[in-house]
Amino acid sequence: MSLNNQNVKIRSAVLGAAGYSGAELCALITANPFFELCYAFASGGREAEPLASLYPRFQQQIDIMVEPWSDAFLDSMTVDVAFLALPHEASEEIAPKLLAKGIKVFDLSGAFRLKQAALYPQYYGYAHQHPELLSQAVYSLMEWQTAPLGDLVSVPGCYPTACSLALLPVLKAGLVTDDCIPVISATSGVSGAGRKASLSTSFCEVGLNAYGFFKHRHRPEIEQNLGRKVVFTPHLGNFKRGILATCVVNLKKGVTAQQVNDAFVAAYQHKPLIRFSQKSPNVADVAGTPFCDLFWQQDGEQLVIMSAIDNLLKGAAAQAMQAANVRFDVPETAGLLPGALV
Amino acid sequence: MSLNNQNVKIRSAVLGAAGYSGAELCALITANPFFELCYAFASGGREAEPLASLYPRFQQQIDIMVEPWSDAFLDSMTVDVAFLALPHEASEEIAPKLLAKGIKVFDLSGAFRLKQAALYPQYYGYAHQHPELLSQAVYSLMEWQTAPLGDLVSVPGCYPTACSLALLPVLKAGLVTDDCIPVISATSGVSGAGRKASLSTSFCEVGLNAYGFFKHRHRPEIEQNLGRKVVFTPHLGNFKRGILATCVVNLKKGVTAQQVNDAFVAAYQHKPLIRFSQKSPNVADVAGTPFCDLFWQQDGEQLVIMSAIDNLLKGAAAQAMQAANVRFDVPETAGLLPGALV
Amino acid sequence: MSLNNQNVKIRSAVLGAAGYSGAELCALITANPFFELCYAFASGGREAEPLASLYPRFQQQIDIMVEPWSDAFLDSMTVDVAFLALPHEASEEIAPKLLAKGIKVFDLSGAFRLKQAALYPQYYGYAHQHPELLSQAVYSLMEWQTAPLGDLVSVPGCYPTACSLALLPVLKAGLVTDDCIPVISATSGVSGAGRKASLSTSFCEVGLNAYGFFKHRHRPEIEQNLGRKVVFTPHLGNFKRGILATCVVNLKKGVTAQQVNDAFVAAYQHKPLIRFSQKSPNVADVAGTPFCDLFWQQDGEQLVIMSAIDNLLKGAAAQAMQAANVRFDVPETAGLLPGALV
Amino acid sequence: MSLNNQNVKIRSAVLGAAGYSGAELCALITANPFFELCYAFASGGREAEPLASLYPRFQQQIDIMVEPWSDAFLDSMTVDVAFLALPHEASEEIAPKLLAKGIKVFDLSGAFRLKQAALYPQYYGYAHQHPELLSQAVYSLMEWQTAPLGDLVSVPGCYPTACSLALLPVLKAGLVTDDCIPVISATSGVSGAGRKASLSTSFCEVGLNAYGFFKHRHRPEIEQNLGRKVVFTPHLGNFKRGILATCVVNLKKGVTAQQVNDAFVAAYQHKPLIRFSQKSPNVADVAGTPFCDLFWQQDGEQLVIMSAIDNLLKGAAAQAMQAANVRFDVPETAGLLPGALV
Repeated sequence: MSLNNQNVKIRSAVLGAAGYSGAELCALITANPFFELCYAFASGGREAEPLASLYPRFQQQIDIMVEPWSDAFLDSMTVDVAFLALPHEASEEIAPKLLAKGIKVFDLSGAFRLKQAALYPQYYGYAHQHPELLSQAVYSLMEWQTAPLGDLVSVPGCYPTACSLALLPVLKAGLVTDDCIPVISATSGVSGAGRKASLSTSFCEVGLNAYGFFKHRHRPEIEQNLGRKVVFTPHLGNFKRGILATCVVNLKKGVTAQQVNDAFVAAYQHKPLIRFSQKSPNVADVAGTPFCDLFWQQDGEQLVIMSAIDNLLKGAAAQAMQAANVRFDVPETAGLLPGALV
Repeated sequence: MSLNNQNVKIRSAVLGAAGYSGAELCALITANPFFELCYAFASGGREAEPLASLYPRFQQQIDIMVEPWSDAFLDSMTVDVAFLALPHEASEEIAPKLLAKGIKVFDLSGAFRLKQAALYPQYYGYAHQHPELLSQAVYSLMEWQTAPLGDLVSVPGCYPTACSLALLPVLKAGLVTDDCIPVISATSGVSGAGRKASLSTSFCEVGLNAYGFFKHRHRPEIEQNLGRKVVFTPHLGNFKRGILATCVVNLKKGVTAQQVNDAFVAAYQHKPLIRFSQKSPNVADVAGTPFCDLFWQQDGEQLVIMSAIDNLLKGAAAQAMQAANVRFDVPETAGLLPGALV
Repeated sequence: MSLNNQNVKIRSAVLGAAGYSGAELCALITANPFFELCYAFASGGREAEPLASLYPRFQQQIDIMVEPWSDAFLDSMTVDVAFLALPHEASEEIAPKLLAKGIKVFDLSGAFRLKQAALYPQYYGYAHQHPELLSQAVYSLMEWQTAPLGDLVSVPGCYPTACSLALLPVLKAGLVTDDCIPVISATSGVSGAGRKASLSTSFCEVGLNAYGFFKHRHRPEIEQNLGRKVVFTPHLGNFKRGILATCVVNLKKGVTAQQVNDAFVAAYQHKPLIRFSQKSPNVADVAGTPFCDLFWQQDGEQLVIMSAIDNLLKGAAAQAMQAANVRFDVPETAGLLPGALV
Repeated sequence: MSLNNQNVKIRSAVLGAAGYSGAELCALITANPFFELCYAFASGGREAEPLASLYPRFQQQIDIMVEPWSDAFLDSMTVDVAFLALPHEASEEIAPKLLAKGIKVFDLSGAFRLKQAALYPQYYGYAHQHPELLSQAVYSLMEWQTAPLGDLVSVPGCYPTACSLALLPVLKAGLVTDDCIPVISATSGVSGAGRKASLSTSFCEVGLNAYGFFKHRHRPEIEQNLGRKVVFTPHLGNFKRGILATCVVNLKKGVTAQQVNDAFVAAYQHKPLIRFSQKSPNVADVAGTPFCDLFWQQDGEQLVIMSAIDNLLKGAAAQAMQAANVRFDVPETAGLLPGALV
């Protein structure tokens, strides 16, 4: 691709920049030598404010105003790509407008993740208004995505990323019994709930608890990725960033440790953002990184696979950046690893 | 007093029972064999709800409904005492009504703490509507309160409790230079900000920072207690419960360690809720207890005094209970210490 | 029983009082009107020290010296019961000596939990020296224990308590498929690792990770309790106290929500330390309490059961106290619930 | 300097790479395009181990073995600079040997920070063996250091960095009364205590407490920097990284807010790692960054200055890197700010 050679940067906008994932996107784009952060938007009806005022840790590092979005920007702004870190209803509404202007869209919400429109009422509580986009959108779990990304990219959810990266190697390799329903227990840091103040994410209220039994929005997404039913139990833990997923499956009789190991190696040996851990991964070791750390242990026909990611990075912003790097034909980890491009 | 002998319990209501301090009061009253929790109220406009539904940890331990307050209860309820764990404006409005019904009032807000009505506009942002009650109210820092408590008791603030208990012994003993302005740096757990959801107390936002420089509402209260100006800097720390106050004063020339020690012993040797620590107190050691832990270290003319309390207990609910115990002539620590009365 | 009427307290010793569970035992015994804490011991070779010096939060609440243990105490001390909060090797060695002196023993270690001596080398790494005591010891999961407790009581482990209380109702009621291997993912607070300083429990090292895959000592104990194989994955979480267990089983075809509900009600309706939660329990709501909070959700043939306990209380000290209360024929919750006996 | 132009990297060794500061140094050097991490050493008597095994978060990011140090490396290794993240006794012993080999030394311990050898017995508990190096060593508080750095650079301590950066502007500007003894209350994250397991830094033991009253090793260092006595009270807080210092001084009569502001601007307007905050800095906003965030508030003659740093970065490793950048004549923030050099 010529962008790189010509030193013309890919002009980018972030919508939803006031939220945690959006702010991380602003940071990643700023650190990426192939991209330029041209606009940062928050929802309408608020004052323009420097990002570094919303997030003091970015002071002297990211110099951009977060402006209230209005559709007038559709005409006035000139960007190559828009990253949407918005509620799913908002993404669903604005994505077609951006696409109509020729802007590539990377959507971090759930608006375009499910292929079956009928699942939206059940899991998202509303009828999808643009079902035609569901087939057009390409789901960017990059370690498993082989199709070209197109103009509308749907970035995987945080839990589905952790769980699918854990389970796909052995499922795709045919090592799991046909009737096995994987049992997934996953714990997310509080940032997964977004920045909006609420009682359940107030400091004094957070301990460790499960929630969303059988009905969490990420369940159908995981099931779509794996091609089978799962029991998925999400938990809220008292840490800021990270997801740890504990995934249990039944192996076919006679499956060996070597076969399991080979499945993971075959799947990920050339994937720069997957790491094989030497013991259970720890959320503290992936927080602030774009990696997914994997570890597995077998006992006869039972296999436990551990997976850890930073929910805001590999589970959101870094995964979007990774996909955009591939989409625009620059190095896959540009902006994601310190010193990767120097 | 005859209440104890007759096994007639002191009938009690808690207003503001949905908040942290109010809920703690409900627990303390329930554990106190001399008191009976008859009513628990929250603000109007909400549904009645069991306290154990608001606070699951009280399930099978406290069996009371939290009902929305309306002034109609002024006529219908028969209680001896009302504990107000309300915003100061609400306390100021409702306290006179309760007093008019012959109900003793223990107010945990700042509404009646300051003797000078003129300080309210400056520090609380509104003009006091019942300045006549400011002189009537008795401030219940029980370790230093000698006057009878009367019908309207103003329970000290959390920071003023920690700071005053630390500094009064040496000030009252005349060991501090006349021109010394005590320098107080104090850190509170997040529960001090109440249960209302807000960005600043969201789990992901809490780290350690100072706030309210020179203008915190507790500054004039501390100054009133100490009889001199202070530099008071409050901080918000990433723990749920507790306050640690670091207080620095200049001693008069020649003041000895023995004199300092004697001042603390004289002040507190018969006070059941004061503990002298053998090293710096730790908020973790007072959390969940009604104690104030004190420790001091001297270096020539400089004296550092450390003070730790649970902001919701000795800094709020337990201090109110302690005062009510004294007011109704039952053992001072009833309901506050496990096994104290068995 | 006559103890209560005669006001003769049950004389008690705690061995291992310097550790977290032992210190909690000292507190519970102190709060229990039917028991008297006569001795607190730590391992030999250390200085005698007040418990309140080891644990400043007990200052002015528990007044006892922690003395270094020596076998000479076997002759000199006169107690009815000894609580052993010791490493399993130490328990195994000292229990027979205490029994020989006519002292009832409540052991909180794993030394006497497994009925099959052959499991000790595999899971505990040593050959049991007193296999004859394994059959004599009574396992005190009190909600399911019907046999008299005898002289040697083996108190369940923390994870097995949480998991067994969750799973036994539906297993015993025959609602689970015969070939189902329950999948248990459980997270413990750091106090579960004991008070000895180690890198893995250092403040800066703790995040959230799994450990002990398939080989944890509590696995055979859980399997012994449930009468079937399990997949048990323990995790270390960044909180001090509590265990949350997420248990998944397959129900037999056609099992209804009512049947599941009935199983729990039948099992626990008269059990004072079991609470049915209205949503997922939270470790924060059981920390500091003797309760086990349970909650379940069904989706067709899949059932998820959540269980939360304080690992140091219902998972250790409070469960021992509960068993001792029953053993000595005093109220089951004596000393465990505030005000329970007043 | 020619290094940059010739693309010859500055060859570097880190001694003490197994500790927190040493590991951070390895990461910073790796990210710095002008430096090359050639050796990482830990204390003798341990096995060589990959850094990424000691710190899994560095997996696939830093590829170096941590080898046990022996003096034989003095002859065999060819490096330009050695960073010592060692205990002070070890630094004191090894620094002269490295200097003798022509290797520049950046020492992060306290071994060479104090100019008066006589203070070592009092505050460090041992007699300095190389007092002649105390005058040779240059103290690298870079925002205030004007002299060339020489061959032996003594990197400031974490607390002294936070406190001195806060107080020097107004002290140097002559705005503080001559007899004022600044009162400093500072709270450090637990990583400040190093990685060695100890009870006081065990997860379950950490709350918030003060320690080291009047006798902390950083007191004389702060006093040396400020040229006056201070009351310095350090605290241990329950977070991993960061220091927040609350500094109070008395201003001379009539000093205006403008004068105070001008003093800070004059001192730091061209300093890339100082940020002026718009409200109290928060340790969460500096954690993981090389910045010192400053904020001040005045009330008449009282001035409170807040200062926040990451104790492991601006308080240790990043400050050493900053000094080395200056010493070797490459951009001051090389390797410290994402994208700074691209």
